[in-house]
Amino acid sequence: MKNLIVQKYGGTSVGDIERIKNVARRVIKTKESGKDVVVVVSAMGDSTDHLLEMAYTISEKPAAREMDMLLATGEQVSIALLAIAIQEMGHDVISLTGAQCGIITSDRFNKAKIDSINTTRIMRELQSKKIVIVAGFQGVNANKDITTLGRGGSDTTAVALAAALGAEKCEIYTDVNGVYTADPRIVSEASLIPAISYDEVIELAALGAKVLHPRSVELAGNYKVPLVVRSSFNDHKGTIIEEDISMEKVLIRGISLDEDIAKISVLGVPDKPGIAFKLFSLLSKEDIHVDMIVQNVNRNGVNDITFTVAMDELQRANETAQKFAFDVEAERVVYDTGVSKLSVVGTGVVANAEVASKFFEALYEIGINIQAISTSEIKISCIIDKEKGKEAMKYIHKKFDM
Amino acid sequence: MKNLIVQKYGGTSVGDIERIKNVARRVIKTKESGKDVVVVVSAMGDSTDHLLEMAYTISEKPAAREMDMLLATGEQVSIALLAIAIQEMGHDVISLTGAQCGIITSDRFNKAKIDSINTTRIMRELQSKKIVIVAGFQGVNANKDITTLGRGGSDTTAVALAAALGAEKCEIYTDVNGVYTADPRIVSEASLIPAISYDEVIELAALGAKVLHPRSVELAGNYKVPLVVRSSFNDHKGTIIEEDISMEKVLIRGISLDEDIAKISVLGVPDKPGIAFKLFSLLSKEDIHVDMIVQNVNRNGVNDITFTVAMDELQRANETAQKFAFDVEAERVVYDTGVSKLSVVGTGVVANAEVASKFFEALYEIGINIQAISTSEIKISCIIDKEKGKEAMKYIHKKFDM
Repeated sequence: MKNLIVQKYGGTSVGDIERIKNVARRVIKTKESGKDVVVVVSAMGDSTDHLLEMAYTISEKPAAREMDMLLATGEQVSIALLAIAIQEMGHDVISLTGAQCGIITSDRFNKAKIDSINTTRIMRELQSKKIVIVAGFQGVNANKDITTLGRGGSDTTAVALAAALGAEKCEIYTDVNGVYTADPRIVSEASLIPAISYDEVIELAALGAKVLHPRSVELAGNYKVPLVVRSSFNDHKGTIIEEDISMEKVLIRGISLDEDIAKISVLGVPDKPGIAFKLFSLLSKEDIHVDMIVQNVNRNGVNDITFTVAMDELQRANETAQKFAFDVEAERVVYDTGVSKLSVVGTGVVANAEVASKFFEALYEIGINIQAISTSEIKISCIIDKEKGKEAMKYIHKKFDM
Repeated sequence: MKNLIVQKYGGTSVGDIERIKNVARRVIKTKESGKDVVVVVSAMGDSTDHLLEMAYTISEKPAAREMDMLLATGEQVSIALLAIAIQEMGHDVISLTGAQCGIITSDRFNKAKIDSINTTRIMRELQSKKIVIVAGFQGVNANKDITTLGRGGSDTTAVALAAALGAEKCEIYTDVNGVYTADPRIVSEASLIPAISYDEVIELAALGAKVLHPRSVELAGNYKVPLVVRSSFNDHKGTIIEEDISMEKVLIRGISLDEDIAKISVLGVPDKPGIAFKLFSLLSKEDIHVDMIVQNVNRNGVNDITFTVAMDELQRANETAQKFAFDVEAERVVYDTGVSKLSVVGTGVVANAEVASKFFEALYEIGINIQAISTSEIKISCIIDKEKGKEAMKYIHKKFDM
């Protein structure tokens, strides 16, 4: 549908009745501009926390299926209230749960992936000129059990619907004005990026910029859905994310700091072929995402293997590493939560050797030791002392004159 | 299924986490006694009030479809939490929404009626030895829109499931010990009735005894499902409701007092054929349930028509009566909320003229004026001054020596 816009509003944007009315007014404004509108909403503010608290009071390990049954109610409340608000303002509207709008997912409760979307119902409602409100974050498996999509779930719902419906764009409304060159709460000079490519924003997101989950941006990139990130509280134009079409590549797009990481080292690992593979295959089986990996040079027939993981996977990663260390008779496992990852992102970053040397030089100038380095096509990341992370971020933002 | 028991727990019984655990223990006890169990639950305590409050803050007349979307989340939270509690205690369990357990209803949002139940999914889960938890009060229409069943909805879900599954009985757990000869909060000598017929309990319920909604009892009677009303807080055996099989009919089963009624009088209605019919057909179109009707004798070519309605339908009934009065050029409409309805119920009530005369005599003895009388096969009701309702109830309970 050429004339269709998909909008997604997060939990903060629908945090209370006044904000829900505010969202209703925004949606209606778009509708009145002559567009068809599908609106994806998250659960109200902290309502999910309240549900989680009740469940974990009852059981430390509640069944994943029942947790999805429970959590899906949060979005269902939001869609009903938003529909009521839009209807009160005089517009035709209908709310649909994930099941009702045909979002079929994998069987994996809590972390389901969207397999397909049957758009029949949504199309019918759009054709009868209704505004359609969809519960984000949820779907059903082939057995009609309710599933939730895990992190970034509502964004993913919005992008997937935009792709399935052939929307002209997908707008992600949030509580910031868009994507910045650095976190403006840390770097006061940070500036808003008006346009950025999918790849660049994926790196920024993966590196700790909290605006968008990389999963939804990847999906948008795969289906070439133009994404707009903007605030639900003002009329700022926000950041548009689409394929990079500019002739002139920008060297550096932004800087990000991820403080929610931890470093684990397995010390004294016997130097045998395939031994590192065994560790990372164990971690992968446990569904733990390993980020940077550093293997130290051989000393006396043993290696040290160091890797980083997200903070909330530290405990499980540490247990897995302990098991591995016992099996292969390594010396011991140590972990360090006092680290963070500082990255520069941009299409020209790796092609241009000057960027890397300027980055390392800047860290040297302010006396920060680099514990590990990793690079991709469009980013360079360094693991540094967490205490110095913010200071380093500010200094480098200035050094690169962003 | 011969070995199956359907249990229903109301909002008070699942009012908080501790009570949900208590229900879990009761359910497991039944399961461990060798029975299959299907459990129907309502929304937690006052959670529905919270949802209603949010909706009515946004709109005075929210769309019925969206209200059902909203309210259905209450039961969905309860089933998930109860399933988590049962699972934590080591039993296999699964929760199902109205849609998932195949409860197909009419299109009438807020007041839907169950058309059919496709028991495939429930049967499959029972056969795999799981305890099945079902969301009461809800279903879906043919279009897969979520509907709610209105008053007495969760009881109706439980009885309908018991009928569809051929359960051996349906237990309704509540916060009282069973059905009493009169409201024990008013009449301290009131005693628990161990066994009662469907018809008698329907009359008691229709007359203000709040234990069971007549709708669910009617359904139970139609499908011959034995109903047990008992407390979820103790082990009292409760009241069993089934077809009346005793040879010896009990004269009087109980007394009830309905204080939630109002009386409307249309004064000076021209005495023409069919004019009363017109009034009651208008009320019926507005879905207003009229209870007792009294038409005064003709005086100078005009009549007074008086009827009673439930308090929460007074406003709409009054508007309809005003419209009628204007159309037929009646003098005016007056209403009175200072009345209540006192009834005696029992299979022998009407057959035995002595009961009626003893009833009227008792009211006379304590100086209470009867404003209207109505009778059915098994009850006699009088409209009296509300201020004297409780006093009359106590006196008559004693007079009939219940």
